[in-house]
Amino acid sequence: MMDRLIDRIKKKNAPIVVGLDPVMKFVPEHIRQEAFAQYGETLQGAAEAIFAYNKGIVDAVCDLVPAVKPQIAMYEQFGTPGLIAYQKTVDYCKQKDLLVIADVKRGDIGSTSEAYAVAHLGKVTVGTKSYAPFDADFATVNPYLGSDGITPFLNVCREQKKGIFVLVKTSNPSSGEFQDRLVEGRPLYELVGEKVAQWGETCMGEQYSCVGAVVGATYPEQGKILRRLMPKTFILVPGYGAQGGKGADLVHFFNEDGLGAIINSSRGIIAAYQQEKYARFGAKHYADAARQAVLDMKEDIARALENR
Amino acid sequence: MMDRLIDRIKKKNAPIVVGLDPVMKFVPEHIRQEAFAQYGETLQGAAEAIFAYNKGIVDAVCDLVPAVKPQIAMYEQFGTPGLIAYQKTVDYCKQKDLLVIADVKRGDIGSTSEAYAVAHLGKVTVGTKSYAPFDADFATVNPYLGSDGITPFLNVCREQKKGIFVLVKTSNPSSGEFQDRLVEGRPLYELVGEKVAQWGETCMGEQYSCVGAVVGATYPEQGKILRRLMPKTFILVPGYGAQGGKGADLVHFFNEDGLGAIINSSRGIIAAYQQEKYARFGAKHYADAARQAVLDMKEDIARALENR
Repeated sequence: MMDRLIDRIKKKNAPIVVGLDPVMKFVPEHIRQEAFAQYGETLQGAAEAIFAYNKGIVDAVCDLVPAVKPQIAMYEQFGTPGLIAYQKTVDYCKQKDLLVIADVKRGDIGSTSEAYAVAHLGKVTVGTKSYAPFDADFATVNPYLGSDGITPFLNVCREQKKGIFVLVKTSNPSSGEFQDRLVEGRPLYELVGEKVAQWGETCMGEQYSCVGAVVGATYPEQGKILRRLMPKTFILVPGYGAQGGKGADLVHFFNEDGLGAIINSSRGIIAAYQQEKYARFGAKHYADAARQAVLDMKEDIARALENR
Repeated sequence: MMDRLIDRIKKKNAPIVVGLDPVMKFVPEHIRQEAFAQYGETLQGAAEAIFAYNKGIVDAVCDLVPAVKPQIAMYEQFGTPGLIAYQKTVDYCKQKDLLVIADVKRGDIGSTSEAYAVAHLGKVTVGTKSYAPFDADFATVNPYLGSDGITPFLNVCREQKKGIFVLVKTSNPSSGEFQDRLVEGRPLYELVGEKVAQWGETCMGEQYSCVGAVVGATYPEQGKILRRLMPKTFILVPGYGAQGGKGADLVHFFNEDGLGAIINSSRGIIAAYQQEKYARFGAKHYADAARQAVLDMKEDIARALENR
């Protein structure tokens, strides 16, 4: 699956993933009103609004980017109707030939971890039949529980040709509380990074393994070290844009071949129309604003990579 | 909410939580057949089967225990129909006056963490209305992302009088890979434990805070240390029974007042009828077997506490 992601990145010349993290305050008034008129101010009304909003964005950017990353929490907060909207979003993106990174950050052990892997990447057996419940291409996974939490995901990845991205160094200010603590003189995230590389050896594609890593754009120096520690690991980089990461910070996450990283932007793209820079589009044309924000991001990253 | 849990534990004289982690192979044939006859071998058929199975167990144990702990992964693997069964399970348990610990192990940052907190413990706003999507009493949370992931949960806990249990030292064999690594001579789980105690200070009940900890029964020595490090923290202890934890191992998790810990058993109770010890009940009477397993567990723990 990582090979498919690389192939798409090359084709579209864009190491970019659009984060589909719909917050109600991002959803333009006209979409909210239409959904509420039909379904009321209910969880279903909210779910329909965010799905309609997502569709607009996906239609506007699907020719530009290789992948999207829906953040499941934003759907889960609207209960089961929200999760149905999540599933419809995944399906719609796949119809539009986008790869889907399910940002679920699940992490458990043994049969429970297997259940999460099956839910998001695999197939579940019911009697004599089998079903792919959410059927994303990649999922994000939390490493705190160790190999017992990762192995069931690797089994599903090998079987179904899917991939995972393991949290290594997250983009948030307090990520250092535990991740930066020194273990025998080295920060914990390096140890996690080494484990990610090891797990990946059991599941190699052409150049990169099916086990990616999440490393925040807000920590470029750490990114440089992790890039060297995990040469065959694809890095998913959140924190660009709204969280403060800039194009120039990103170059460290890429290998010499110009590959090895994919940069996520969520708010910066899906709510671009709310920024002064893109205000001219207006709420009605939020999707065009999102498209322009992707084009600008693409240029920002390309320029940074040229100048490195 | 921790005060309510303590109150129930005292009333029922049972520091026990029943893990509702339904796996299809635990569900007796007659329940599966009935669900498949009505809904086919579909995700919904599976979801209905596990809900019917849960109801039997809940009916049989609800007078004996203060709380249940549904493991959401086991429902998530059946897609949105599975999550509807999860929600129905939570609702049913609350009707039966049980407290519900949502074993979701979510962990993210900022607005995303807030969305998870809202989904499982809080209320979400839709236009002028608000809804409690899954509405459990407690949720389990992963600490790897630091305070940015915990604070949004604390806000919801204070507002809605709910609680969380943060993973500190998990019960699985590989939990040590990261959790036991020495930071300035002390294992990481101790640092996480100290943070749990600090987070809890901002959210105190009568004797215990609303921030509990998860510490596996399979690590009694670590439990002893953590008990001292977090005197006002309630400990949720998985790993009893099927994972190898014994009554005698559990005493270290309790404070002198006989409180401070609640022991989970999942398989050991819900699939008791599949054990030789309870085979006499047969699959038809799986719920009676579960009841007997709770009674035996209660006695095992009471005896261990007497003998300490």
